[in-house]
Amino acid sequence: MCSSLRSFQRLAQLAPPQLQLVSFNAILNEKPCKRMVLYYHDIIFNGTNVANATSAKASNETELTHKFGMLVVFNDPITKDHHLLSPPVAQAQGFYFYDMKTTYNAWFSYTLIFNSTKHKGTINIMGADMIDSETRDLSVVGGTGDFFMTRGIATLRTD
Amino acid sequence: MCSSLRSFQRLAQLAPPQLQLVSFNAILNEKPCKRMVLYYHDIIFNGTNVANATSAKASNETELTHKFGMLVVFNDPITKDHHLLSPPVAQAQGFYFYDMKTTYNAWFSYTLIFNSTKHKGTINIMGADMIDSETRDLSVVGGTGDFFMTRGIATLRTD
Amino acid sequence: MCSSLRSFQRLAQLAPPQLQLVSFNAILNEKPCKRMVLYYHDIIFNGTNVANATSAKASNETELTHKFGMLVVFNDPITKDHHLLSPPVAQAQGFYFYDMKTTYNAWFSYTLIFNSTKHKGTINIMGADMIDSETRDLSVVGGTGDFFMTRGIATLRTD
Repeated sequence: MCSSLRSFQRLAQLAPPQLQLVSFNAILNEKPCKRMVLYYHDIIFNGTNVANATSAKASNETELTHKFGMLVVFNDPITKDHHLLSPPVAQAQGFYFYDMKTTYNAWFSYTLIFNSTKHKGTINIMGADMIDSETRDLSVVGGTGDFFMTRGIATLRTD
Repeated sequence: MCSSLRSFQRLAQLAPPQLQLVSFNAILNEKPCKRMVLYYHDIIFNGTNVANATSAKASNETELTHKFGMLVVFNDPITKDHHLLSPPVAQAQGFYFYDMKTTYNAWFSYTLIFNSTKHKGTINIMGADMIDSETRDLSVVGGTGDFFMTRGIATLRTD
Repeated sequence: MCSSLRSFQRLAQLAPPQLQLVSFNAILNEKPCKRMVLYYHDIIFNGTNVANATSAKASNETELTHKFGMLVVFNDPITKDHHLLSPPVAQAQGFYFYDMKTTYNAWFSYTLIFNSTKHKGTINIMGADMIDSETRDLSVVGGTGDFFMTRGIATLRTD
């Protein structure tokens, strides 16, 4: 059974997360786990940045505090390093919403889409992002293409 | 390990998808993969078709283009052939939202519910529907009843 | 293969579910299935109960009946017994929405978060909650920490 730890990071300059790295295990072949480190760049639509925005609010926050209930849809470029302008190696398509009254806690579900000479396929991820923890593990619940039926963990870290 | 390819189709006469086929692998028993072909009929609520509608907008599109951020909840009949009026063999309950500025790209998460003499149980599916690809693979991430812990792939094709 | 039945309950005094128990199978180690019974307490925000509310509407119901399309984000305490004021053993963070015109049928996706001396980690769950059935099975699609790559079933029952 593949059980190596995996790690990655996220840059959180804005309230919505700016950067995530994702790693995962491929359990199909029982080989040593694959591991990836990825950076996720998110620029939320603020009413004027149509050209640059990679995400947008689909529902407004409620009267509960810390944006509880605010839903954001995103389609973010993923790079191999911290630089927003590095060539994307994947896209992250999905959503998150805030779900805590006491802090900016979020819940994510999304797909990493790879379409390069190195990787073709998708990785599907869901789970809670407990923002106050240094690292947070989400579940890799499936994959397609090169990542056929992949399972494992995606660990988020704030950079 | 079950690894056969699976295929299915979708009719896309309206902006929201009209038709999907879903196939999946049952890996529990290590037998050759099960495969299904299914058609998914979606009629979005347009303000007047309460009786016929099978889906409705839960959030409006944002100012980003191509309906970015629009969330649709659906409960659609599933048939074995292309005909909307064929007896349903399942229901598809779930949601999708649009998540690309340059085309009508969507992200889905839903449950296929079977309740017939042939099949009882559910299949849970999530993933990106990259509308510009001829076929798109979503992940089958779990199942219940006859489909207990099923995993695999659901491939969408536009008909 | 782990296949034991699992059961749990839910208190449904309000339209949104009040109480759920969740059990699951850990298939990693092929040992006999783990089983848990948990109670889920949900208090929806009604405009005035900011201090007590554990969930809130993120989108309004549509003109289709039975709240079709209404999306609720929740962050609910989980207890080992029926009592709301028992010490929580976990949190359930996620969302549900109503998706049927003829009854209060819902679709759920959420994470159980454990952070105690007994359990540390998360369990990720999704599926249809067919409210008119006495018990309804959702899929456990993954887990982290003590529940690393857990799969199985979460069965809901109305109390």
